[in-house]
Amino acid sequence: MSGSLAIIGLGPGGDRYLTREAEEALEGAEALYGYGPYLDRAPARAGQTRHASDNREEATRATAALSHAAQGAHVGIVSGGDPGVFAMAASVCEEIAAGPESWRALDIRVVPGITAMLAVAARAGAPLGHDFCAISLSDNLKPWDLILKRLDAAAGAGFVVALYNPVSRARPWQLADAFARLARHLPDATPVIFGRAVGREEESVTVTTLAEAERIAADMATLVIVGSAETRLIAREGRAPLVYTPRAVEKVIA
Amino acid sequence: MSGSLAIIGLGPGGDRYLTREAEEALEGAEALYGYGPYLDRAPARAGQTRHASDNREEATRATAALSHAAQGAHVGIVSGGDPGVFAMAASVCEEIAAGPESWRALDIRVVPGITAMLAVAARAGAPLGHDFCAISLSDNLKPWDLILKRLDAAAGAGFVVALYNPVSRARPWQLADAFARLARHLPDATPVIFGRAVGREEESVTVTTLAEAERIAADMATLVIVGSAETRLIAREGRAPLVYTPRAVEKVIA
Repeated sequence: MSGSLAIIGLGPGGDRYLTREAEEALEGAEALYGYGPYLDRAPARAGQTRHASDNREEATRATAALSHAAQGAHVGIVSGGDPGVFAMAASVCEEIAAGPESWRALDIRVVPGITAMLAVAARAGAPLGHDFCAISLSDNLKPWDLILKRLDAAAGAGFVVALYNPVSRARPWQLADAFARLARHLPDATPVIFGRAVGREEESVTVTTLAEAERIAADMATLVIVGSAETRLIAREGRAPLVYTPRAVEKVIA
Repeated sequence: MSGSLAIIGLGPGGDRYLTREAEEALEGAEALYGYGPYLDRAPARAGQTRHASDNREEATRATAALSHAAQGAHVGIVSGGDPGVFAMAASVCEEIAAGPESWRALDIRVVPGITAMLAVAARAGAPLGHDFCAISLSDNLKPWDLILKRLDAAAGAGFVVALYNPVSRARPWQLADAFARLARHLPDATPVIFGRAVGREEESVTVTTLAEAERIAADMATLVIVGSAETRLIAREGRAPLVYTPRAVEKVIA
């Protein structure tokens, strides 16, 4: 009997971003693993077991799900956003690489989801309309110096930058430091977007400038997009401005 | 009477990546604009008009859809993948910025979709599990020198790189040049993934190395992911290897 493991992206927020493929994968799983609030978003299915774990216990969750699948079960792991972007898919691969040979025989499937930067960008207009990059500011997995080096490289070469995991309780100073670093390369007026809890009722999207950005509160549910020197605003009466990065580069970047 | 324009992401391929929000937006549109093959993917709805245009006529399509919405209609533009990533959302914003004041009064909504790099990454494992960037190799909107500068910046700082629009009829040499440029920074064995027509029946995913990558055929329906020095493979008997980039950085990048 051959087991399988599907790593299923739910998208951010409620169920509006759920894809057909994700719905089918949730339905097909005999056992679902994941962070409790994500599990709660999967519709109940008779006979399906649920295994909730804490948000930070990725490795333990991956190991438990792989062990379960290796017994021949069809197992799912739910992931907010896209499982491939700073989420469970890499964690599962890491455990397979370090685990028993039998885990390599499993049918492993990643079901993509709408990742937070796409949802936040959609709310604001088209800030990711030109070249962009995604950086996790969580420095428990890499040195802060490397994060600074990447911020320099990205802003210096004209990429729009999406910042995941912008702050944590242990390191509340990180995001302000990142803005200060980006400001070495970018004008004060560069548009910055804060998207929090996008797709949920308490959703909020704030558009500000790089000079003002450190005044805006952010937490681990926030995704921040910092424009490039090309990113611009369209003011609209009675509506939030549209933020977009044109497809064509006009300015010459030295 | 107040018009609206929804820019709707269908995801790549068939309908497996369609989100609930996109399905509702397709249903709610009185008129749908878009590239013919994308329009064909939207389920028929009584009374809905369809306006097909060529793939390269983004500006004309955006203008036509905005004019139609300004007459008070609920209009949709369909986009493959995510409309915010090298696609229609930026094009619509550009036309609003240059267009009549009445276009700024429209209700503009972007409905995000699964963009190609997420779908290709999911097929391969988790190559985007760490910091990454997305670059369009189409140089009719920016100089080739700027593309080279961005490839240097991205690979030099340890980003995984997703390449959109990797080749065109006019510039078949671009992709090989990009690989050569990335090879200045990356080992020969760096994993490279070619994903073509992902989500469709003719889907193909090829995993190779940077040294071998120029031998693989690519076209405008191909999305290429070039790993970082951290990206690795898990060999599996009778299955394609899993490609992933660990969440934690182990090597020190100078």
